[in-house]
Amino acid sequence: MKTINVALAERSYPIYIGGKTLDNSELINKHINSQQVLIVTNDVVAKHYLEKVERFVEHLDYDTYILPDGEKTKSLANLELIISRLLENKYSRTCTLIALGGGVIGDLTGFVAACYQRGVNFVQIPTTLLAQVDSSVGGKTAVNHALGKNMIGAFYQPQAVIADTDVLHTLPDRELSAGLAEVIKYGLIRDELFFIWLEENIEKLVQRDEAALTYAIERSCINKAEVVAEDERESGLRAILNFGHTFGHAIETGLSYQHWLHGEAVGCGMLMATDLSVRLGLIEEDNLYRVESIIEKAGLPTKVHQSVTLEQMLENMKVDKKAKDGVVYLILLNSVGNALITADYSSEALTETIEKYLQ
Amino acid sequence: MKTINVALAERSYPIYIGGKTLDNSELINKHINSQQVLIVTNDVVAKHYLEKVERFVEHLDYDTYILPDGEKTKSLANLELIISRLLENKYSRTCTLIALGGGVIGDLTGFVAACYQRGVNFVQIPTTLLAQVDSSVGGKTAVNHALGKNMIGAFYQPQAVIADTDVLHTLPDRELSAGLAEVIKYGLIRDELFFIWLEENIEKLVQRDEAALTYAIERSCINKAEVVAEDERESGLRAILNFGHTFGHAIETGLSYQHWLHGEAVGCGMLMATDLSVRLGLIEEDNLYRVESIIEKAGLPTKVHQSVTLEQMLENMKVDKKAKDGVVYLILLNSVGNALITADYSSEALTETIEKYLQ
Repeated sequence: MKTINVALAERSYPIYIGGKTLDNSELINKHINSQQVLIVTNDVVAKHYLEKVERFVEHLDYDTYILPDGEKTKSLANLELIISRLLENKYSRTCTLIALGGGVIGDLTGFVAACYQRGVNFVQIPTTLLAQVDSSVGGKTAVNHALGKNMIGAFYQPQAVIADTDVLHTLPDRELSAGLAEVIKYGLIRDELFFIWLEENIEKLVQRDEAALTYAIERSCINKAEVVAEDERESGLRAILNFGHTFGHAIETGLSYQHWLHGEAVGCGMLMATDLSVRLGLIEEDNLYRVESIIEKAGLPTKVHQSVTLEQMLENMKVDKKAKDGVVYLILLNSVGNALITADYSSEALTETIEKYLQ
Repeated sequence: MKTINVALAERSYPIYIGGKTLDNSELINKHINSQQVLIVTNDVVAKHYLEKVERFVEHLDYDTYILPDGEKTKSLANLELIISRLLENKYSRTCTLIALGGGVIGDLTGFVAACYQRGVNFVQIPTTLLAQVDSSVGGKTAVNHALGKNMIGAFYQPQAVIADTDVLHTLPDRELSAGLAEVIKYGLIRDELFFIWLEENIEKLVQRDEAALTYAIERSCINKAEVVAEDERESGLRAILNFGHTFGHAIETGLSYQHWLHGEAVGCGMLMATDLSVRLGLIEEDNLYRVESIIEKAGLPTKVHQSVTLEQMLENMKVDKKAKDGVVYLILLNSVGNALITADYSSEALTETIEKYLQ
């Protein structure tokens, strides 16, 4: 088992990565200082892993809250319902929430933990690759608004993250690919050697080679932890983690969060961001082919879903959280392994990039 | 004009107190670093002061959001509506919200600021005595849940608080009294000299003597700022600011947040907490008479509203945010000017106290 520390002073916490971490009851109980525990999960994950997690807390006053699988679950309405349950059961400010699931469950449960009585403890048990390498690490919590993804949320850190690589065996292929999008992202934005390793090992990852997956998760978490430790609340550097996300969010909003997984939208978004970087003369064109190749091999879409239009893309990008006084900042590439944040691009170049990837 | 600093490292901010602070456009514009501003207020306050505040920001891209007056406004539903407006107008993460109103507007707007895109700037312009001495200072933001007051919220600090004492001239008598409850609280929990001053000047305050009010607001804000600087997130000391509030919140929940103002419930709650302190032998009985006398002179109720029952009080107190694993901690008095936090009381003594103040 590997332990990575997210260094945030009094809000520091460990990420445990490895096989069978979900069979180790000591690991989680070190981080629960409470008699009252609520496990939040979804119906798909519950079938596979809820019993395991219940065994950890059976000596405590615990309860479970099972939500439908899917992005629509990440709503203010569900936040209110979970809080109703906590209040009905008289859960106090010292209770602990456990998020057992992918990014949707982690983001929603984390935001409930941030808001309930102005903040209670929570532990993340991510069960998708995407959640293990990205959403469970760094304290971004949120729910969606009909007019924009993750628009209502908080920066709020968990007590611990427990990533069991064994759970990836039950993950559908599309979800694995979606997670690989974020893994590839770390290589592109700040870790050239990791990107080269990924180019050589992408087939192994798709085939779920255990050693390759463990290494990829570890390097991803180290990269993310370093960025978050430097800029917890995204006042600068942290924004590079959004590489591909401004395009991706615009696609997701255009699809009303249906049809595509978040990672699929990010994968396609990274292509678009790389294409724009080439168009602006920031990087050589051959890098675009490298990105196209790895995105394709990872099983991710290389064109925007057919129902999304240019107008939708441009409109949806305007409400991106990185926008400042109406100007949309984008994360682009200076080279493979080196990202920059800029608003220095023409609307013509942006339009050309979007049109190239529309169907 | 007096300026009090709330010392919270990089989250420090000033409270400006005095007459005509709302005629000083420089004061507020120092704290707005944005082109996009939303003023949130209620229909009653808007009639008196919205125009003044609009004048401050007329050179910016600003909008106003006017809510109905009253505690019911502090809801998750209104949070979502305000966020809809922000998104419809494409407000970015660099926008500023201005809370113009009493505690309801301040708490709701502050929580919107905490959540919108995971946090935007906000400025508090409190227009009630209660908001000026209490709710606008210290960063507690929240909305109510049907099962409990302030149960969904965040610790989130404003950029500045602008308290204009002139606005108190338009305040109804009941609201003035409600504010005095919190003023009296600071004397009781940590400032004996201020309590003695209050005993001598309570009539002047009720008559809205300008100098007396300014002094009372200043001392209250200094007391609150000191406590908050020591314990921003209420892990210990800050809980003493809830003196009278566990009883008070139970009354308010019993009344479904109707009939009584928050300060009225706190006033009556402080009497109950003092009575329980006497019952437990913590303080001499003559102090209870002093508290009864000043509460009455302040125009606050000295008996619980007739529609609230013993069972409701006991049940509602259990979901108090200070409860830990089902144990309800109370703030009681060791002496006038000295509070303590304790769970060391019998349920019999608690029941006797509640019964004494029921009608």
